[in-house]
Amino acid sequence: MSRIVYLNGEYLPEEEAKISIFDRGFVMGDAVYEVTSVLGGKILEFEGHMNRLARSMAELEMTCDLTRDEWVEIHRELIKRNNIDEGMVYLQVSRGNAGDRDFHYPPEGTPPTVVLYTQAKENLADDPKAKVGIKVISLPDLRWHRRDIKTVQLLYPSMAKMAAEKAGKNDAWFVEDGFVTEGSSNNVYIVKGNKIITRQLSHDILHGITRASLLKYAAESQMEIEERPFTIEEAQSADEAFYTSASAFVMPVVEVDGEAIGTGKVGPVAARLREIYLDESLKAAI
Amino acid sequence: MSRIVYLNGEYLPEEEAKISIFDRGFVMGDAVYEVTSVLGGKILEFEGHMNRLARSMAELEMTCDLTRDEWVEIHRELIKRNNIDEGMVYLQVSRGNAGDRDFHYPPEGTPPTVVLYTQAKENLADDPKAKVGIKVISLPDLRWHRRDIKTVQLLYPSMAKMAAEKAGKNDAWFVEDGFVTEGSSNNVYIVKGNKIITRQLSHDILHGITRASLLKYAAESQMEIEERPFTIEEAQSADEAFYTSASAFVMPVVEVDGEAIGTGKVGPVAARLREIYLDESLKAAI
Repeated sequence: MSRIVYLNGEYLPEEEAKISIFDRGFVMGDAVYEVTSVLGGKILEFEGHMNRLARSMAELEMTCDLTRDEWVEIHRELIKRNNIDEGMVYLQVSRGNAGDRDFHYPPEGTPPTVVLYTQAKENLADDPKAKVGIKVISLPDLRWHRRDIKTVQLLYPSMAKMAAEKAGKNDAWFVEDGFVTEGSSNNVYIVKGNKIITRQLSHDILHGITRASLLKYAAESQMEIEERPFTIEEAQSADEAFYTSASAFVMPVVEVDGEAIGTGKVGPVAARLREIYLDESLKAAI
Repeated sequence: MSRIVYLNGEYLPEEEAKISIFDRGFVMGDAVYEVTSVLGGKILEFEGHMNRLARSMAELEMTCDLTRDEWVEIHRELIKRNNIDEGMVYLQVSRGNAGDRDFHYPPEGTPPTVVLYTQAKENLADDPKAKVGIKVISLPDLRWHRRDIKTVQLLYPSMAKMAAEKAGKNDAWFVEDGFVTEGSSNNVYIVKGNKIITRQLSHDILHGITRASLLKYAAESQMEIEERPFTIEEAQSADEAFYTSASAFVMPVVEVDGEAIGTGKVGPVAARLREIYLDESLKAAI
């Protein structure tokens, strides 16, 4: 059965949801996005994602007049119409259809293009991969340098995931100037004793919504947090590693570049943090 | 009057040319493009642009089964239907509509999305800006690191052109590790005596089609060519500067970051090279 998606104020069958060939998202990569998870029909981390969307748009001088309540309404309507119990809601805002291709931004008042759709995913919370952990390769970080702005310029992350797959692994970690920046679509962490080490926020990495909550929950669980860059070698000699993202929550990483991390199995810290994260964010879901 | 554009085998009025919201070009920046100039109804540098398109696609493992003759035919048909004397033909190929959003490439055999359209532009050859030269600011180069692949991930060049405009200038030059890489959508050059200095080819810059021809014509005109990086300071103390691009040909640059270059007026080398470039490429136009 075809999904019902949202496009610029209308709810449409997905096959009918089409945008102009002049859309700035198509010709210039001039669009931002968010992905929220849905568990038990409820939206996780809604405020965090809406705040980051607003920040991405502000950084790019992009505007959209939908209110917080209207965003909630669209999310809920899509979840209802598509009968989503577990899955994601994808949201994209582009600078709109300029009527032609031009590097210059279209005139003020050009309406943005707003697209939302659901992706059903069974076992999102009870993901079998979280029980065995995933394996990653490292790749040079060739992305642009404003990774804090969540744009759709995702070709390199896409290439990296394909390279990981070709290497028989699950994902890639990016390295720049000798240090890990982040995963291809997630923030990364290593665990050493009672300490969680993760790169500090800057323009170099995405300011993960799951990351912010995770660090709060970890601190509440009496774990020490050190925000600094780390190397692949340090990760390989850590006790544990994991990543966070909106749709994978807390995912154990058990191998980097062919080297097992710790025992090579899912460690207790990652497992416990995943549990806490799911419990807490479900409690706060709307 | 509405343009007739080409989309996936069809010639359509531009308002009807629409693509799926799941198109990889819209959700992942997963598309490449070319722009060719048209003078007197003829296409300039066709082979060069087609070769680069093939290279971009090969680097990204993207396929498209249109033959060289079919590409020519589409270009000519659009030029004819839209009655283009001077202007450009824009061509974009994305990895197509995967039917949903996924970082992984869609299955082999998924047809690419192919879009072409014309942009009429009076005085393309007789551009008044070429008579006075343009002024640029420098900005850090924050783009991804495979600039040799001509993808639509153009948000930063777009931001840079807006920043230049806000500063009351025409364009921006990008600087990385202390050296100029290229302009926001063009290759850049400085002139010192009988010598033209321009950055060597690598993944750091676009392999300009106009650049390749320009260097050939310059060599034939007994000019010395040095392919190496240069700094903003070196540009400011050069005799002349200019840039090349498919639609601006050879464009004199008379100011960088508020400092006049040479006399601050269009110099003889840039003016002469523009003339030679236009003459020669018109002769070879198809």
